[in-house]
Amino acid sequence: MAKVGIVMGSDSDMPIMSKAADVLAKLGVEFEMTIISAHREPDVFFEYAKSAESKGFKVIIAGAGKAAHLPGMCAAIFPLPVIGIPMKTSDLGGVDSLYSIVQMPTGIPVATVAINGGANAGILAAKILAASDPELLERLKKYSEDMKEEVEGKAKKLDEIGYKEYLKQM
Amino acid sequence: MAKVGIVMGSDSDMPIMSKAADVLAKLGVEFEMTIISAHREPDVFFEYAKSAESKGFKVIIAGAGKAAHLPGMCAAIFPLPVIGIPMKTSDLGGVDSLYSIVQMPTGIPVATVAINGGANAGILAAKILAASDPELLERLKKYSEDMKEEVEGKAKKLDEIGYKEYLKQM
Amino acid sequence: MAKVGIVMGSDSDMPIMSKAADVLAKLGVEFEMTIISAHREPDVFFEYAKSAESKGFKVIIAGAGKAAHLPGMCAAIFPLPVIGIPMKTSDLGGVDSLYSIVQMPTGIPVATVAINGGANAGILAAKILAASDPELLERLKKYSEDMKEEVEGKAKKLDEIGYKEYLKQM
Amino acid sequence: MAKVGIVMGSDSDMPIMSKAADVLAKLGVEFEMTIISAHREPDVFFEYAKSAESKGFKVIIAGAGKAAHLPGMCAAIFPLPVIGIPMKTSDLGGVDSLYSIVQMPTGIPVATVAINGGANAGILAAKILAASDPELLERLKKYSEDMKEEVEGKAKKLDEIGYKEYLKQM
Amino acid sequence: MAKVGIVMGSDSDMPIMSKAADVLAKLGVEFEMTIISAHREPDVFFEYAKSAESKGFKVIIAGAGKAAHLPGMCAAIFPLPVIGIPMKTSDLGGVDSLYSIVQMPTGIPVATVAINGGANAGILAAKILAASDPELLERLKKYSEDMKEEVEGKAKKLDEIGYKEYLKQM
Amino acid sequence: MAKVGIVMGSDSDMPIMSKAADVLAKLGVEFEMTIISAHREPDVFFEYAKSAESKGFKVIIAGAGKAAHLPGMCAAIFPLPVIGIPMKTSDLGGVDSLYSIVQMPTGIPVATVAINGGANAGILAAKILAASDPELLERLKKYSEDMKEEVEGKAKKLDEIGYKEYLKQM
Amino acid sequence: MAKVGIVMGSDSDMPIMSKAADVLAKLGVEFEMTIISAHREPDVFFEYAKSAESKGFKVIIAGAGKAAHLPGMCAAIFPLPVIGIPMKTSDLGGVDSLYSIVQMPTGIPVATVAINGGANAGILAAKILAASDPELLERLKKYSEDMKEEVEGKAKKLDEIGYKEYLKQM
Amino acid sequence: MAKVGIVMGSDSDMPIMSKAADVLAKLGVEFEMTIISAHREPDVFFEYAKSAESKGFKVIIAGAGKAAHLPGMCAAIFPLPVIGIPMKTSDLGGVDSLYSIVQMPTGIPVATVAINGGANAGILAAKILAASDPELLERLKKYSEDMKEEVEGKAKKLDEIGYKEYLKQM
Repeated sequence: MAKVGIVMGSDSDMPIMSKAADVLAKLGVEFEMTIISAHREPDVFFEYAKSAESKGFKVIIAGAGKAAHLPGMCAAIFPLPVIGIPMKTSDLGGVDSLYSIVQMPTGIPVATVAINGGANAGILAAKILAASDPELLERLKKYSEDMKEEVEGKAKKLDEIGYKEYLKQM
Repeated sequence: MAKVGIVMGSDSDMPIMSKAADVLAKLGVEFEMTIISAHREPDVFFEYAKSAESKGFKVIIAGAGKAAHLPGMCAAIFPLPVIGIPMKTSDLGGVDSLYSIVQMPTGIPVATVAINGGANAGILAAKILAASDPELLERLKKYSEDMKEEVEGKAKKLDEIGYKEYLKQM
Repeated sequence: MAKVGIVMGSDSDMPIMSKAADVLAKLGVEFEMTIISAHREPDVFFEYAKSAESKGFKVIIAGAGKAAHLPGMCAAIFPLPVIGIPMKTSDLGGVDSLYSIVQMPTGIPVATVAINGGANAGILAAKILAASDPELLERLKKYSEDMKEEVEGKAKKLDEIGYKEYLKQM
Repeated sequence: MAKVGIVMGSDSDMPIMSKAADVLAKLGVEFEMTIISAHREPDVFFEYAKSAESKGFKVIIAGAGKAAHLPGMCAAIFPLPVIGIPMKTSDLGGVDSLYSIVQMPTGIPVATVAINGGANAGILAAKILAASDPELLERLKKYSEDMKEEVEGKAKKLDEIGYKEYLKQM
Repeated sequence: MAKVGIVMGSDSDMPIMSKAADVLAKLGVEFEMTIISAHREPDVFFEYAKSAESKGFKVIIAGAGKAAHLPGMCAAIFPLPVIGIPMKTSDLGGVDSLYSIVQMPTGIPVATVAINGGANAGILAAKILAASDPELLERLKKYSEDMKEEVEGKAKKLDEIGYKEYLKQM
Repeated sequence: MAKVGIVMGSDSDMPIMSKAADVLAKLGVEFEMTIISAHREPDVFFEYAKSAESKGFKVIIAGAGKAAHLPGMCAAIFPLPVIGIPMKTSDLGGVDSLYSIVQMPTGIPVATVAINGGANAGILAAKILAASDPELLERLKKYSEDMKEEVEGKAKKLDEIGYKEYLKQM
Repeated sequence: MAKVGIVMGSDSDMPIMSKAADVLAKLGVEFEMTIISAHREPDVFFEYAKSAESKGFKVIIAGAGKAAHLPGMCAAIFPLPVIGIPMKTSDLGGVDSLYSIVQMPTGIPVATVAINGGANAGILAAKILAASDPELLERLKKYSEDMKEEVEGKAKKLDEIGYKEYLKQM
Repeated sequence: MAKVGIVMGSDSDMPIMSKAADVLAKLGVEFEMTIISAHREPDVFFEYAKSAESKGFKVIIAGAGKAAHLPGMCAAIFPLPVIGIPMKTSDLGGVDSLYSIVQMPTGIPVATVAINGGANAGILAAKILAASDPELLERLKKYSEDMKEEVEGKAKKLDEIGYKEYLKQM
């Protein structure tokens, strides 16, 4: 049974949303991804948000851009955590999406990640589930360890070949 | 029968929303004002937006602050014009409200007025109705004429007493 | 007789303004499009704005960029609704255009849509006219239905082929 | 055993942080609150973040202002969810705090709430715990119901006394 | 014959505009001050801008706030220099006024001074006239000399009494 | 004898500064262009600014980017009008240049034009000189007339071929 | 012999600049404070900056607001480190001062601290001197230790009396 | 023995960080460059910052982007000067990095340079060391002299060939 719902307002958001999916797949967390526009199909959206709990979702990851209402409206209906991803926009850089998602009024929080922060939304969803899933927590620690080793590998390479050579190889 | 629905997300918005009401009253346009939070009572909100057309509303004026979703969600459901008023906020000055209301995606426009622009929302609603109501249009022209005379009166006073005296009387 | 005037300050705005025209054409609303610079030819502009009502315009859509005065000056003269489209700018992303259009002083509202929101301006103009035109309202509802079906089609495709395949086909 | 750690960088943040505590108390979630500056006492901070899991914390709520590093550094060490509260600042309104908290690099998410969003941080922490605690979820639903009734009460009052009288009583 | 026209869109701008007048008076430059709203009385405004050259104005100082069109529209009609003063606004701090005045399109410059820069607008007008008026130029140099002496006096006082005493006397 | 000094802080500014020169050349105003960095060669800069009046300059046009001090420092030394051009920057879009130029303290105005507003700086310099040069004023009026005719030509073309064809020819 | 020069553009900056002085006094670093406006008295400023090295200054702390040129111009002349303090401004919050100071072009760095960061400028100056002064370094470490103890004291108090009592005592 | 530590949070920062290294190499200052993520490997980071003084570092140059905590956390541990380089970001232009680095709380300054200001960080580090190293100070003065000559060469070239030819050769 899928634990995480991933929903985006437009398929133009998919390159970012797919990073959340990739992380969840890597961490062994089941998810379901769909496209629903809170603005263009409010009935479909309402049905989705209302049935999410009974479908077994423990977390919803919602991404949207510009005047981004999808994450906040999910949080108004779904009683468990909603993670919001503000999409970068071509005119305002995504600060419009960010404000529309993070500045929620008292009572209805959205757990907001960075602009275009698809992977981080996936990791945060996994951390939320890991609060009651020790095995997932172990996989998350392993994931962090891998990230650490990746940076150490780069530092070692820099130390060996020097920054001028490193730059050339980039 | 009320032609204009005025809706706000919180009663803290009432000092601004009441200016829209005052203008409509002055111009002889019937309106109905209520408080509905799209975030805290999404069912009530949906019912409101869905029944607005059948209740005879031709325009909805919606005001909200911060991650302001009320105007955009109204526009997603109500098929006629929705006017959005971004509320000034104590931390970001209202630019969060503005972006959350004006930056709507293609297909779902919100007719956005200035931050805290309550009176202008009322005037805009009246202008929309005046497109098919010549008498209301006349009243709007009279309203503009009054504004003009008010400025002319001030210019005349300045001319008569000079700016130093004018400043003292402010 | 044309119901909507579309005016832009510079022909560089035409790619955006034409989207308003396309929507109006699709919805069966007559319009007239022209280029008038309030700054470079103020007399031509004044004549345009003053005669707009007698020409039968019920709504004006005005687009401009940077220190964008065209929409606000139209609204100062034309007594019916003016819709403003802030153009994206290469340095400030269009926030200059947005502020110059939306932050109108009390008495002179401009119904502002998103930065580069050409299509939304067209839809908003149609919604304004639809307040007294039931047939146009039906066409608008059909337009919304089409948008909804388009999103549903994408959601169905995603469900069928999965996000990895969907991404490849983008 | 406390499930939620509440930590702030300075006691000037306490008026906001206490709202998170109040919500958690109301929802029956145990918490521990302390003051630790990642900048002024990095050793104390490291010890706190490293021992948080073994102390039984499932979520950390961290608030900080200006160049706010406390939430992000918690998230770098503590393997479970970290919620960040950006403090309003007197010069930049809190946009500095917001960017310093929300714009985390890939791998280290912080679940960011609104500027000064103390209560929402508390609610979000409870929602995270509720993903595996059906009783807490019920209390959260009751909390939402109470919020809804509060708004309905205001709407009813407005309907009964009219907006002019409502304004006077504010 | 007045050389400088001072015009503001609203009498709420007078505390700032009067500083321009004070500087011009001190420098012995004749001016005429009035209140004209380009938005509320476009006919009066057009007449003002068109007749300004024949009335002998060599420079116009125009101040306005929010979506500030007065300076730019003056510059569209009056062929000589127009100085624009962006008014501070309560929500956006005046950045809306600034962008609306300074970001003029090619062909129609407005000589923009700082937000609320009333005195500087007066000095700039005097500098423009001084380009062909050696006596005024001498008075301007004297004015600069006075400013310099004022700072030197403060530096001397600080040197004599120390910063702790200086602070107490502030 | 050159009436206008054109100075830039870096030769990377030349594509913008040359537009000021082109306009002045077109209007028959003599100018002298040079490159001087107030930061890298303060002595050269001081000498330039101090000798500018005796060289016959009536106006200086200064362009600079980022923390742009050149226009303001010119205005601190040269007693006649200084026009500042804020350069667009690759990271902040030029808002850094704009604030560094326009927000001058009381006593030292810089006549600021739009970001990258090279041509407008040239026009503004000519307008300043035209305050005492009727022939130049006539040439400026002719220049405005040409701009007007250019827009009218585009409007006529649009009217003749329609917007779809117009778009294709762009 | 004073090691640190403290200079401000206006005595209105003294409440902030005095914090730098207080820190230096506490750390036993000699300093000289003065008021010099780069804009109002460029000759005095040039003399100051040119003679600073021979007077024995190793570091200059310069504070200024709005279009803040004082720190950058010091850095253009004085060959040793210049620390810049951006002053908070009433309209733009100090972002104008910050950009005018931090965004220096290549070759002329200013070591910028936070908006209104007077104390931090003093500490940074001491750290610079401490790079070759082991005793000063010890005093700086003691200063850090004191800050740490202050936070620890607050944490202890919170632990003892609880946050509700702590709030009451604030 | 290396006097300057150069550290970056990600190897994507290397094109900017290498400019700091190039300047230091040119000025004959020894340095050590490495990659350490405060977020991904907090233990490695702590060890680096704690041992930096004993390794002989007198200055650390730290670069990071987005919610950039590396410079501030270095400054929390390393007792000597830390220079921060805010990286340009693709969505917010680097204003997020800038605020995260420059807005440090009282007690923990970071000497912040411009967005992407790699070379300036190197120069500033050299200036800090030059406060107690007369020979390095001489090399810095020579470096400034070279910059000055480079600008003078460009000015001379412009004078000789004119701006139109200069533009063609760019």
